[in-house]
Amino acid sequence: MTERFSFELKATDGKARTGVIHTPRGEVRTPAFMPVGTAATVKAMMPESVRATGADILLGNTYHLMLRPTAERIDRLGGLHRFMNWQHPILTDSGGFQVMSLAGLRKLTEQGVTFKSHIDGSKHELTPERSMEIQRLLGSDIVMCFDECPALPADRDRIAESMRLSMRWAARSRDAFGDRPGHALFGIQQGGLERDFREESAAALTEIGFDGYAVGGLAVGEGQEAMFGVLDFAPDMLPADKPRYLMGVGKSDDIVGAVARGIDMMDCVLPSRSGRTGQAFTRHGVVNIKNARHQDDPRPLDDKCACPACSNYSRAYLHHVFRANEMISGMLLTWHNLHYFQQIMSGMRDAIAAGTFAEWQADFHAQRAQGDIDPL
Amino acid sequence: MTERFSFELKATDGKARTGVIHTPRGEVRTPAFMPVGTAATVKAMMPESVRATGADILLGNTYHLMLRPTAERIDRLGGLHRFMNWQHPILTDSGGFQVMSLAGLRKLTEQGVTFKSHIDGSKHELTPERSMEIQRLLGSDIVMCFDECPALPADRDRIAESMRLSMRWAARSRDAFGDRPGHALFGIQQGGLERDFREESAAALTEIGFDGYAVGGLAVGEGQEAMFGVLDFAPDMLPADKPRYLMGVGKSDDIVGAVARGIDMMDCVLPSRSGRTGQAFTRHGVVNIKNARHQDDPRPLDDKCACPACSNYSRAYLHHVFRANEMISGMLLTWHNLHYFQQIMSGMRDAIAAGTFAEWQADFHAQRAQGDIDPL
Ligand SMILES: [Zn+2]
Ligand SMILES: [Zn+2]
Repeated sequence: MTERFSFELKATDGKARTGVIHTPRGEVRTPAFMPVGTAATVKAMMPESVRATGADILLGNTYHLMLRPTAERIDRLGGLHRFMNWQHPILTDSGGFQVMSLAGLRKLTEQGVTFKSHIDGSKHELTPERSMEIQRLLGSDIVMCFDECPALPADRDRIAESMRLSMRWAARSRDAFGDRPGHALFGIQQGGLERDFREESAAALTEIGFDGYAVGGLAVGEGQEAMFGVLDFAPDMLPADKPRYLMGVGKSDDIVGAVARGIDMMDCVLPSRSGRTGQAFTRHGVVNIKNARHQDDPRPLDDKCACPACSNYSRAYLHHVFRANEMISGMLLTWHNLHYFQQIMSGMRDAIAAGTFAEWQADFHAQRAQGDIDPL
Repeated sequence: MTERFSFELKATDGKARTGVIHTPRGEVRTPAFMPVGTAATVKAMMPESVRATGADILLGNTYHLMLRPTAERIDRLGGLHRFMNWQHPILTDSGGFQVMSLAGLRKLTEQGVTFKSHIDGSKHELTPERSMEIQRLLGSDIVMCFDECPALPADRDRIAESMRLSMRWAARSRDAFGDRPGHALFGIQQGGLERDFREESAAALTEIGFDGYAVGGLAVGEGQEAMFGVLDFAPDMLPADKPRYLMGVGKSDDIVGAVARGIDMMDCVLPSRSGRTGQAFTRHGVVNIKNARHQDDPRPLDDKCACPACSNYSRAYLHHVFRANEMISGMLLTWHNLHYFQQIMSGMRDAIAAGTFAEWQADFHAQRAQGDIDPL
């Protein structure tokens, strides 16, 4: 087991990269998709099952955990890994993004953000220093800088102002994080869709120096085309020898497009959240299991998928348990969706290593274009 | 694999019995506790996990399944075992008990019962013949006679009238069931708390002849003392060479008391339903995980329990995920509760075989009397 955090780039194919992040808690194969374990659980999944889908790392949410059960309590209980029974790496966000989403409930100053809990209305403060402290108490392997970002579209002044505040907070985060061997701190590039601000942000972060760099401020309403437009230049501005993380992305085609543009890590609630609302993602696109067309269909969701939902159950069963509001509906569809996302990641890793990523992408899009199998 | 249904009595200790029910789908070790899979799922559990707790057989509910997804649909999809991915034996109830609970929504005649669906208000009929047909379509291994029973207390006339109707329905169920090698039909003794009616019912059923016999009409509000009073004589009235099934029971001490009185099989929603409402059953009694006393407690629910909830999680975690309304709360507590119930069953089977059931019972009650561990 390595004692220090490091990133080993193994192969590139065009801008796409594959490698391994070494941490004391184990390896993260990149490109990596991180399932989201908001409140110390990936909803509807046992952690062993999340691991079985191929996940090397989870994301935990500072905002939710600081409110309940609190970072101090998790620390007393031995840290987040032990608390939630996940011994592999964990990345935590800074809480910034979620606090900023509490419109009306929060107040932003140079110092940080004060806000009211969505659970009980109690008042809290998050600053770069407090965010670093919380993430340390949680025992996070990859800590994110405390930052803020505007919803898009926003005018250039607002974007610049916000980005520069985030860069000052990045420096404070770096100072507060200190030296913690085996743990990593990632900086977060901001700047909206503006190339010059992205450049300025990347320069500021690189000057401070981080163990990895996130592309932040995307997937906030700008649409895929605009996002890919930024990803055409933004990752190149970040050091090539460190992992690059695109936050909060996304749909499967977003993920593939991001990897094609040099992104190494992603996270999204989509596969788990959609699983609980009856949406399955397959090679052939989206399947809405609640649709009556499935009620007599003995076929699996995807006959090529090796997950338990596809190996052991018919669409008719998945339809039935969704309609009957049974927990196993969310359990099976979440498992399938997470499995499918991890299959995409391993497919991309293999293709990049083999130098066949362009063919892999063409096949990915061709299969999606077929659409779901015809009703019986 | 045996081709016919049979019961092998292996040992007795006092009135307590241990044995094996042989079926083409596998063996059922008795005394057996059957988890309830109402709507083709044991709520919050994957079937592999139910099996891992030690369950040999599940109970399915005719009433729920006939309404949704319908017995005909399950038949077209290859039967209930394939539908719900449980390849071991399944016992189905007749639908009678649940239909009778629809006060105001149902009408009872000699022929059967007409009722309105609780799901969509649609009108349905259940008769002995239709119940046998539904249970055949489901592919049930152990089929229950269609019967009816009054809530207790009830006057003797009502109990006698109801019991005699159930005996006429038992004969019609037997005729409608026909000859189905490998499948079993169980008769259901009625008669409330009245010894003479229980005797009359047992004689009527034995005259017809069944593969097993249930003690029905208990656990309907009469209390443990009254139930044990009936169990002191009712099982003895039933053939000793066939399995005896106590329907809808119960709490762990009900189960132990029933086995002590000669019962071989039981079912109850209690371990799964309680698991979803934050109640755990342990050697030392009931633990309400929502109680704030657990929020900082690093100890497991039960340090002697080998289930995933106890092996991998603290009470503090179980408290947190219950409070946060996370699905893993119901998943873990249901697993624990089912595991604990199956541990009781295997403990009783071993003790009966060893001739130490009295000591086992004394130990069971002594451990319960200790109560939960003290708060920290
Ligand atoms: Zn699948
Ligand atoms: Zn346990």
